[in-house]
Amino acid sequence: MQNQSNAPLVGVIMGSASDMPVMEACTAQLDEFGVPYELIIASAHRNPAKVHEWASTAADRGMRVIIAAAGKAAHLGGVVAAYTPLPIIGVPIKTSDLGGMDSLLSMVQMPSGVPVACVAINGAKNAAIYATQILGAGDPHFMDVIAAFKAAMAEV
Amino acid sequence: MQNQSNAPLVGVIMGSASDMPVMEACTAQLDEFGVPYELIIASAHRNPAKVHEWASTAADRGMRVIIAAAGKAAHLGGVVAAYTPLPIIGVPIKTSDLGGMDSLLSMVQMPSGVPVACVAINGAKNAAIYATQILGAGDPHFMDVIAAFKAAMAEV
Amino acid sequence: MQNQSNAPLVGVIMGSASDMPVMEACTAQLDEFGVPYELIIASAHRNPAKVHEWASTAADRGMRVIIAAAGKAAHLGGVVAAYTPLPIIGVPIKTSDLGGMDSLLSMVQMPSGVPVACVAINGAKNAAIYATQILGAGDPHFMDVIAAFKAAMAEV
Amino acid sequence: MQNQSNAPLVGVIMGSASDMPVMEACTAQLDEFGVPYELIIASAHRNPAKVHEWASTAADRGMRVIIAAAGKAAHLGGVVAAYTPLPIIGVPIKTSDLGGMDSLLSMVQMPSGVPVACVAINGAKNAAIYATQILGAGDPHFMDVIAAFKAAMAEV
Amino acid sequence: MQNQSNAPLVGVIMGSASDMPVMEACTAQLDEFGVPYELIIASAHRNPAKVHEWASTAADRGMRVIIAAAGKAAHLGGVVAAYTPLPIIGVPIKTSDLGGMDSLLSMVQMPSGVPVACVAINGAKNAAIYATQILGAGDPHFMDVIAAFKAAMAEV
Amino acid sequence: MQNQSNAPLVGVIMGSASDMPVMEACTAQLDEFGVPYELIIASAHRNPAKVHEWASTAADRGMRVIIAAAGKAAHLGGVVAAYTPLPIIGVPIKTSDLGGMDSLLSMVQMPSGVPVACVAINGAKNAAIYATQILGAGDPHFMDVIAAFKAAMAEV
Amino acid sequence: MQNQSNAPLVGVIMGSASDMPVMEACTAQLDEFGVPYELIIASAHRNPAKVHEWASTAADRGMRVIIAAAGKAAHLGGVVAAYTPLPIIGVPIKTSDLGGMDSLLSMVQMPSGVPVACVAINGAKNAAIYATQILGAGDPHFMDVIAAFKAAMAEV
Amino acid sequence: MQNQSNAPLVGVIMGSASDMPVMEACTAQLDEFGVPYELIIASAHRNPAKVHEWASTAADRGMRVIIAAAGKAAHLGGVVAAYTPLPIIGVPIKTSDLGGMDSLLSMVQMPSGVPVACVAINGAKNAAIYATQILGAGDPHFMDVIAAFKAAMAEV
Repeated sequence: MQNQSNAPLVGVIMGSASDMPVMEACTAQLDEFGVPYELIIASAHRNPAKVHEWASTAADRGMRVIIAAAGKAAHLGGVVAAYTPLPIIGVPIKTSDLGGMDSLLSMVQMPSGVPVACVAINGAKNAAIYATQILGAGDPHFMDVIAAFKAAMAEV
Repeated sequence: MQNQSNAPLVGVIMGSASDMPVMEACTAQLDEFGVPYELIIASAHRNPAKVHEWASTAADRGMRVIIAAAGKAAHLGGVVAAYTPLPIIGVPIKTSDLGGMDSLLSMVQMPSGVPVACVAINGAKNAAIYATQILGAGDPHFMDVIAAFKAAMAEV
Repeated sequence: MQNQSNAPLVGVIMGSASDMPVMEACTAQLDEFGVPYELIIASAHRNPAKVHEWASTAADRGMRVIIAAAGKAAHLGGVVAAYTPLPIIGVPIKTSDLGGMDSLLSMVQMPSGVPVACVAINGAKNAAIYATQILGAGDPHFMDVIAAFKAAMAEV
Repeated sequence: MQNQSNAPLVGVIMGSASDMPVMEACTAQLDEFGVPYELIIASAHRNPAKVHEWASTAADRGMRVIIAAAGKAAHLGGVVAAYTPLPIIGVPIKTSDLGGMDSLLSMVQMPSGVPVACVAINGAKNAAIYATQILGAGDPHFMDVIAAFKAAMAEV
Repeated sequence: MQNQSNAPLVGVIMGSASDMPVMEACTAQLDEFGVPYELIIASAHRNPAKVHEWASTAADRGMRVIIAAAGKAAHLGGVVAAYTPLPIIGVPIKTSDLGGMDSLLSMVQMPSGVPVACVAINGAKNAAIYATQILGAGDPHFMDVIAAFKAAMAEV
Repeated sequence: MQNQSNAPLVGVIMGSASDMPVMEACTAQLDEFGVPYELIIASAHRNPAKVHEWASTAADRGMRVIIAAAGKAAHLGGVVAAYTPLPIIGVPIKTSDLGGMDSLLSMVQMPSGVPVACVAINGAKNAAIYATQILGAGDPHFMDVIAAFKAAMAEV
Repeated sequence: MQNQSNAPLVGVIMGSASDMPVMEACTAQLDEFGVPYELIIASAHRNPAKVHEWASTAADRGMRVIIAAAGKAAHLGGVVAAYTPLPIIGVPIKTSDLGGMDSLLSMVQMPSGVPVACVAINGAKNAAIYATQILGAGDPHFMDVIAAFKAAMAEV
Repeated sequence: MQNQSNAPLVGVIMGSASDMPVMEACTAQLDEFGVPYELIIASAHRNPAKVHEWASTAADRGMRVIIAAAGKAAHLGGVVAAYTPLPIIGVPIKTSDLGGMDSLLSMVQMPSGVPVACVAINGAKNAAIYATQILGAGDPHFMDVIAAFKAAMAEV
């Protein structure tokens, strides 16, 4: 299952273009790790059909893990999770009124049967690392990438 | 637009059968007000297609307002709102760990464009009253029902 | 019950002139939807008689729904609700110390019998959309307005 | 201004009969201090006219301070404050979902111009003590009562 | 008991000189109401003897009510309350990290027997109004001052 | 990379034996999915060497993903993450005082470079599902397991 | 500075007899470690003179560290800290309404100059361990006690 | 046990160089008190071996107390505590999203057996004072330093 092409392995979806400045730390890290990804901006509430279509076909198009970033009543991760067997990494976006506590609880407190696993509020870079760790669980190349990253970090 | 049949005017949807004991205060109040309703249990995450189908057709089947009850990462109201022009009343269900703060924020903090209007945590009876108020905005019969209810309450 | 004049169908009340910058997103959206509204600034605490008078007569003057915006111990929605059978949409205003959590809880946690349905903190635009959805529950014209709005939003 | 009759000096108002078990600690302490009081159960939302009438006439009927107890979106103190120049002591009642944080913020975060001063969540006994301290500010008899109470407490 | 001199009737104590900008709204309102007051800056923790001395003698020096402002672990109100029979009004000061929730809970949640009644976070002006209301409970002049203030406010 | 033996693919670590009743929902789900796992009880604080040894060798012993459950200042996930390139799923355990908000924030708010992805408070079953989704990202057998699980759930 | 007598080295003070059931875990651990201690129940608010006297003389009577337990607006640690150069360990007691968040913030958020160092909510046993660690900082015997305790704990 | 050399008595460790601006108030106070200290920047998550090595040897190298500062999921204090018998003072660093509530709970809510005692959010100066108080518990020189500091503070 070694990745031999540039077909996207990670799907990055965010609820609003306003999440992009935060999520650039995610795509930058995926680029640095050489992880091919696909980026889409679509709201679970404003563009439900687009999200449905994208999520339902993600696994068949070769993706292995999805990163979903959203703020406030952040349903995006859960909505995507409803339509795909792939693991979803939630990135709760910081909000100007409640600091992101609303985004965090809306993502992490998923009911039994349909998990979304969350990283920290605005944890865009960590979402990229975690997605690569998930790829690494099935592909030694990416486990080596993570091991090298951790070794470099420990030297600082 | 006086309601002349027993066709449901209010759709009541809840994410889990475990929400039913709380929501009985809602259906009891709708019964008392003589408001015909339709009840469905379906999770936005476990049964997305069922929710999608139900929400998409609610307006055409004659419903005028929807009450959505859910707990934890309570996406149900938002997911229904994505598929219907009808107004959605959210009932955040109390949770055993965070008291329902998670349910409340997941429902009320909807992003711009797709509102869900929330009543109190476990506010099942108030959701029924509010749904009837919404019907009353377009039907004098239901405004009379509410006026009589408020008058009786004030006498206590 | 089709709206044939420019008589206000929506009452917009806010507790302080300082709420106006936030609430301009509400009135702008009502304008865009062609919903006639009436605007008033009156505090439940500083001007109780003015609020009482306005709320008590709102239904008779033809209003169908009321939007109440207030911050901190945000009693305005509840006070208006006490004097009218119309549905009240609460807009909790963000506060500089607690982010609006105080406004939200003061509005949404209404006791049994007298609901106020809340949108998000500073959710002024969504309050306008929701008021129009309520009008749409009784008037096909406004349901069409909402349907068109949702369709346009989904295309973005 | 020594109190020479049994005319009530303190008005105790609570939003619901369900608040009575908590508030018995208040009336018991007023009894122990020999403070004449008047007790009323009336909701700011369900019985607004009753609250309005009672609050508007409290000062003229000889009351000097008002204790208002309420839970959830606890507007009672603020509504009473709107209709009387008397000082209002708020008692936020503990709630089963949010522990009383909702009641506390709804009472204490009053906007500029109309204060309600709050004691602790379920602080019914302290409300009685504080009411007596307020009486004591204008009547040496009650200041002596408080001084004796504090001296006895310090000996324990 | 009409106030015939300029002897202070209200003691205003704050924990730090950094609270002064907030508390100027308090002293300005007392000035406007013609309420003579005494101002002191002393920390319950850094200057305990000074606080002890001031609080213990406040009643004998003619004061009728005390306003205590402090931030963070805001013990000042409670410490003053321990040494005087006078009623204490707490002003929780907004904090840069927790918004003043720490100050509020440290002040309002006083244990049984020793109340501190709190106004809103940074509610300096309201503390002055409330102090005047307390004076008004024993002195018709100050009740007239409050009544006039409320009447003027209602006209705006 | 199809799993052909019973060598553990998932490591389940919890900070205290008192977490076991919650975590039985995790091991039961792993059993149902046929996912071989290894279970260990070791505190990051009381048994640091044991945790260090176990975490450092987990990948070499064939594990692909780790589930770490802990309550209060729940450092276990982060400590394990420091010693392994494998993805860590955090399960914040509900606490008797703060409901698990302490456990959640201690796990989810990991700093940049070392993610722990959290499921809901007490989300033991979802942790098992998510671990299987991670295995499924590299092994079609487990993706089929998840797809079948989701299909069965949707039929309910 | 080896402790050669049974003179108390640790002062344990709690605000109310109702804190005793929680604090028995503290005294039991001090007993197990062979740390002589003195126990006193005194409220900072109800018995200020008693607390003042006890705290002011603690260092001269040979105590080296003080453990202060209190709930709600937990000022006890701060008040003791104001009167002694000894280090104070705060134990925030769990409360029935806010879970102990009030006690924690009232203790830990001490202003600059006068620290109280807090252990966990209801962390009575840990307070005993920490007090012994403080003694160990100046007395090898107690550092050995702690080292042995940690070694035994790691073997479990 | 009087300190006769400049060998460090206090270890100051922080999780990130970005904590340094806050912690300068700590080192400045230690300097003012003449307390020799050792400073290290090392993350419990990124540099676990470095932290392990430093913590394990701190006591033998003559340190008597450790100050650990970290933000977000602030495990540093707990991780250091796992490897040393010395008392640990935690400094929770303010965070941009949750104000430091995450840092505080991650530090203070340590499980039974391994305490970390916390000062206020960003309480860097107080950590220095507290460390000196701990030294003073075993060394009269440092108790004199604290006594003088408190006396000077009281004169302000």
